[in-house]
Amino acid sequence: MDEFDLIRRITPKDTYQRSLIMGIGDDASVYQPHSHCEEVVCVDTMVEHVHFRFDFSTPFEVGFKAVAVNVSDIAAMGGTPKYYLVSIAIPPHGDETIVTELYEGMKALADSYHMDLIGGDTVATRSDFVITVTVIGEVSKGKACYRHSAQTGDVVFVTGELGSSAAGLSILMNKAAPSKAVDADFFLKRHKMPQPHIAAGHICSSFPRVTLNDVSDGLASELNEIAEASCVMIEIEADKLPIHPDLQVLRKDWLEWVLFGGEDFVLTGTIPESNWESFESQCQKEGIQVTRIGQVKDDQAASVMLKDNDQQTMLMKKGYNHFKK
Amino acid sequence: MDEFDLIRRITPKDTYQRSLIMGIGDDASVYQPHSHCEEVVCVDTMVEHVHFRFDFSTPFEVGFKAVAVNVSDIAAMGGTPKYYLVSIAIPPHGDETIVTELYEGMKALADSYHMDLIGGDTVATRSDFVITVTVIGEVSKGKACYRHSAQTGDVVFVTGELGSSAAGLSILMNKAAPSKAVDADFFLKRHKMPQPHIAAGHICSSFPRVTLNDVSDGLASELNEIAEASCVMIEIEADKLPIHPDLQVLRKDWLEWVLFGGEDFVLTGTIPESNWESFESQCQKEGIQVTRIGQVKDDQAASVMLKDNDQQTMLMKKGYNHFKK
Repeated sequence: MDEFDLIRRITPKDTYQRSLIMGIGDDASVYQPHSHCEEVVCVDTMVEHVHFRFDFSTPFEVGFKAVAVNVSDIAAMGGTPKYYLVSIAIPPHGDETIVTELYEGMKALADSYHMDLIGGDTVATRSDFVITVTVIGEVSKGKACYRHSAQTGDVVFVTGELGSSAAGLSILMNKAAPSKAVDADFFLKRHKMPQPHIAAGHICSSFPRVTLNDVSDGLASELNEIAEASCVMIEIEADKLPIHPDLQVLRKDWLEWVLFGGEDFVLTGTIPESNWESFESQCQKEGIQVTRIGQVKDDQAASVMLKDNDQQTMLMKKGYNHFKK
Repeated sequence: MDEFDLIRRITPKDTYQRSLIMGIGDDASVYQPHSHCEEVVCVDTMVEHVHFRFDFSTPFEVGFKAVAVNVSDIAAMGGTPKYYLVSIAIPPHGDETIVTELYEGMKALADSYHMDLIGGDTVATRSDFVITVTVIGEVSKGKACYRHSAQTGDVVFVTGELGSSAAGLSILMNKAAPSKAVDADFFLKRHKMPQPHIAAGHICSSFPRVTLNDVSDGLASELNEIAEASCVMIEIEADKLPIHPDLQVLRKDWLEWVLFGGEDFVLTGTIPESNWESFESQCQKEGIQVTRIGQVKDDQAASVMLKDNDQQTMLMKKGYNHFKK
């Protein structure tokens, strides 16, 4: 594969962002940030056979997801994605068709947010694809949603539903065999082509004090990060956790997927009780599913508790622990 | 290796940039760009066994170079590096000591420019290290140095000397055997720990019209990029090309290293004749070596010509071509 030819083909012919001064085609890209905004930056890497497999996902789907997981991090700050850079290490089995489809998948997700590809690198590697995506976005000054501002009495919420991506992966790995009655395509799509919750993040950032994480490592892990950063106890209720109705058909222990499955790329966080109604109604107006799943509790060590009927369970980042009555 | 533990250890305790609002520790980093500046962004990947080998370079040196090559791209825009993000795919042979030293090498280069590490990812891979560094810098509004503004009559210059990095690599690969009289350490250091020319880039950006590239792919390649982007003919003179005196001792065809060796990470570009004296004296004041190596010529197709005594040779990106008279 000729690198110059590849660069020519992936270089966008048009750009979306008017503040872009120099895109691909010089030593670095140059853009003019908006004066009323702060810049938001993140990077994520996906490795073949670790994060994706071409017998599970098409190159298009892999590319789509590689950008989506980064855009989800921007959503979790309440930001708007603007630019992305792609660095891709290509193994000997990576022919031109695969690489082109990877970039098309990335472009499909990026186009839906009017993001411009402004840089990258293509290099050779000996065994597996390694795809690194950097995303740069912006958020209005002082409006970013962090993890450290949760307070006693806040409502704990989640946008969208939980456990679907893990269910999709299980179906792919033949660990969960869906009957005809189960909408398998729904779960597969959630796993292979997750949609970042940018619009929900925008609503969050319009309120004065929202803590926010995207659910990449599982709900328990994300809420623990908020509990630690804010030094609060978070209590969630098992029967409030939003799921697709078919999830319970796929697995008896479906709660495992919901709490620890991860890769849902929905948002979870906390908001003051006094803002809840307005927040909920704004989400509804925009067709965003938002569910109240618990509350920030008073005077406790930083922790996450799950209430399931009369039982209280302490949720650690990666599993249950320390059962209490 | 525990990822959380690693992140804790590499997370900077202090930060340099006062405009950094949220560094490592949330879904994304947030910073306030300077209102009189434009943002400059680039990304570069280095793959083990392709771009580096641990029997040639220590992990510290590899980390240092991984950031240096990106900072050099910022230098080539006339910019100042501010932040960097590191994504690293770690193979089974990548133990904690190697990874820690890689980050220490990156930090050593970054510290010298007061750059803050503001994000990254650590993932597993099956065979080779893949290190991707994103650097974000800034340049005063309208002051970035591009490739497309060269004009007839401009002086062609280079900062520092050429061919040293390629000579260093040859010594490492036992292709060039240095005698005792040769300063081998000089060439090895140029190859293993290149110093980006940020200060020289700043002087360039203070002039109204400078075209600029860093010499990563070899002088011939970089000047061809300027010639193409600016639609001009560039003529350089072989006897003006600055080299370390020992270079000629190492190899009879040393000009190959100078023109096509690459990885020198000095800057090359063009500046109007009327600015040359002032430019040269500013460089001298700051102890920066700058050499006039040729001129932009009138009325020719985009190309790069080498004058060597009476011979004129057309320089292609990757080699000689099309010998004339």
